[in-house]
Amino acid sequence: MRCDVLAIGTELLLGQIVDSNSSWIGEQLAAVGIDTMEHRKVGDNLSRMTTAIGEMLAAADAVVVCGGLGPTQDDVTREAIAAAMGVELERHDDLVAQIAAMFGSRGRDMPANNLRQADVPVGAEVIPNPIGTAPGIRAEIAGRVVYAVPGVPYEMQRMVIEHVLPDLLARSGESSAIVSRSLKTWGASESGLAEMIAHRVDVQTNPTIAFLARGIEGIVVRLTAKAPTEAEARALIEPEETTLREVLGELVFAVDDETMEHAVLSRLEARGWTLGVAESLTGGLIGARIANVPGASRTFRGSVASYATDVKRSLLGVTAEHVVSKECAEQMADGARRALGADVGIAATGVAGPEEQDGQPVGTVWFALALPGLPVEAVSTRLPGDRERIRQFSTISLLNLLRVRLDALEHLGA
Amino acid sequence: MRCDVLAIGTELLLGQIVDSNSSWIGEQLAAVGIDTMEHRKVGDNLSRMTTAIGEMLAAADAVVVCGGLGPTQDDVTREAIAAAMGVELERHDDLVAQIAAMFGSRGRDMPANNLRQADVPVGAEVIPNPIGTAPGIRAEIAGRVVYAVPGVPYEMQRMVIEHVLPDLLARSGESSAIVSRSLKTWGASESGLAEMIAHRVDVQTNPTIAFLARGIEGIVVRLTAKAPTEAEARALIEPEETTLREVLGELVFAVDDETMEHAVLSRLEARGWTLGVAESLTGGLIGARIANVPGASRTFRGSVASYATDVKRSLLGVTAEHVVSKECAEQMADGARRALGADVGIAATGVAGPEEQDGQPVGTVWFALALPGLPVEAVSTRLPGDRERIRQFSTISLLNLLRVRLDALEHLGA
Repeated sequence: MRCDVLAIGTELLLGQIVDSNSSWIGEQLAAVGIDTMEHRKVGDNLSRMTTAIGEMLAAADAVVVCGGLGPTQDDVTREAIAAAMGVELERHDDLVAQIAAMFGSRGRDMPANNLRQADVPVGAEVIPNPIGTAPGIRAEIAGRVVYAVPGVPYEMQRMVIEHVLPDLLARSGESSAIVSRSLKTWGASESGLAEMIAHRVDVQTNPTIAFLARGIEGIVVRLTAKAPTEAEARALIEPEETTLREVLGELVFAVDDETMEHAVLSRLEARGWTLGVAESLTGGLIGARIANVPGASRTFRGSVASYATDVKRSLLGVTAEHVVSKECAEQMADGARRALGADVGIAATGVAGPEEQDGQPVGTVWFALALPGLPVEAVSTRLPGDRERIRQFSTISLLNLLRVRLDALEHLGA
Repeated sequence: MRCDVLAIGTELLLGQIVDSNSSWIGEQLAAVGIDTMEHRKVGDNLSRMTTAIGEMLAAADAVVVCGGLGPTQDDVTREAIAAAMGVELERHDDLVAQIAAMFGSRGRDMPANNLRQADVPVGAEVIPNPIGTAPGIRAEIAGRVVYAVPGVPYEMQRMVIEHVLPDLLARSGESSAIVSRSLKTWGASESGLAEMIAHRVDVQTNPTIAFLARGIEGIVVRLTAKAPTEAEARALIEPEETTLREVLGELVFAVDDETMEHAVLSRLEARGWTLGVAESLTGGLIGARIANVPGASRTFRGSVASYATDVKRSLLGVTAEHVVSKECAEQMADGARRALGADVGIAATGVAGPEEQDGQPVGTVWFALALPGLPVEAVSTRLPGDRERIRQFSTISLLNLLRVRLDALEHLGA
């Protein structure tokens, strides 16, 4: 089974928007074992779109057309599919009612243009869009199938997962329920992870096990199971997830949509502990990332980005001579706890570059944790990359260190 | 003149990397008035690449092939172009010497595989790659032209700007030197800017004037001039830039690669003033952004992200009852100056959401500036978007406010 992708929009060709939709669709197709061999982008032009649909359906079993389903005159995906099918469009009264209801629920009048979104090629089926006004389309052309979904990413993603992938799998004679589980890891390389779980990756076909590199967000180990029903797919995932978690241990920091900052805050909140941060090279990144979580104020007291050495002394009580040192990191973590009135203090100090500092090479970073009832702990590391990367890596590494310690306390029953 | 783009790489189809190269190339083509109507992605597969090159050259005057020029066996762009031309590859001794020299200068031995990068289709020309080991290729096929450039973005970008665009313009009978100037603006909408300079956009053909929306980095007004020589192109840009700057005034915060944080730091440094920041809803983003500039430590003292109300009181001396208020913002800016020992204090406090706070709606933000010898000044605004967007908008808005005030002082001779 081969499914290619056609992204629609003049703004994509002009570089005003980068087409990340086709990449996302390609990733989903690969996860369920469907080949994808060509992606195209064309502008909002009926004749070029119709030609592209025809050419692509000649090479692939299926094509996902993404975008061009909006209400304005330049949105002509409906017309292009009708032309490729050799049929007319017909207006669906039930879609008119649905679109009008969606506007009504938002307290707005429906512009007349939006009626165009109720037009469907004769003989094609409607793919419901539960979160937007643009319904999708599924059409068969000479034994092949074309799906049209909106270009708005979250609408497109939901329709691909709920409709397109199951339909493709059913057509390929495979089971049509798909369940994925993403184990988010930090602290091992992709090849390191691959080696740890090679004995599972090699023998697993359902669920499949894939590695997705996410840069400063770590590496995701993704399980994808196919089965006749969602419950059966879940039942396939669960024992495999348990097995992998036993091997991966504390490398797994979160699951699915959870982030590192969520993971840290939820663990602190469960203990009723508040958090204070002392930063140097990160300049505020650590606090900024924590504060990105809605409800962070229940746990997060604040952050002191003490960039200048004498600010480390005056606000955090640092007396260490060198600011890239174990002693300085420890004093910063302790100072953050005190200055910010927090139960837990964490700190990062180091050399982001481009030049070395105090004779320490670029990438040298000291982290420290001050947890209630425990001595202040410091660890050093040497991070790769440029200034931006070192600062980002420092941020997630320190948060991960705190997460690992909180989990260790939990296991000790402390 | 129509030039389309073919991006090469199985990893692009699988969504492991998003193809932003073709978007970038599309943007450059549009800037110099060359049409681009179809972009494709195919995997590292000789037969599919050859077919795509042939099909695309049938529709367009030129095709840029991006990627697949690496040293490994799966890099087959050279072979695909030779196949499309109907010729063999020949090894260029001068390229062998260049590639060996590049390895030598890095103190590394050249793997035998890298010799493949010295292979060029018979009758094709070499596009020099001054910063990498993969030379590019230019080939004529049936009166059309195909360019192959590496997939590494900075290598690709340099070769497109220095070779591909001038060559395309020369072929189209146009002048071949291109100079661009980006005026980066903050504070007006795209339609607002368009209205202000409509009288210039409407009459200008060389330089052209384009708007590029950059989200939280504002809107770029880009001038692009074509002329027989670079000096002549620059001479075309200069008077137009002067005219536009007179109309746009303080909306222009930076030029070309300069960022808002550069703009702020360079102005502060010129006065010998240091900066301290007090943050609330941004949680550290403002400090983090400033600290991203190498050399920030000469000017940036630090940032206090006082997330909890009593941290605002204890560290910054805030006495205001409500934390989303003019009085609180003013006290924070003054407190930042004092607590961080800085000449200039700036502050942001507001409601990032998702819930309102103290009866203030989501998006309400107060900014304050404390400058030497001037009364502390506060301004409020109402920002759109979700939590992340409100925090990012707050960051750049506050930095812009400081920039505008520093420029005003400069104009007053103060």
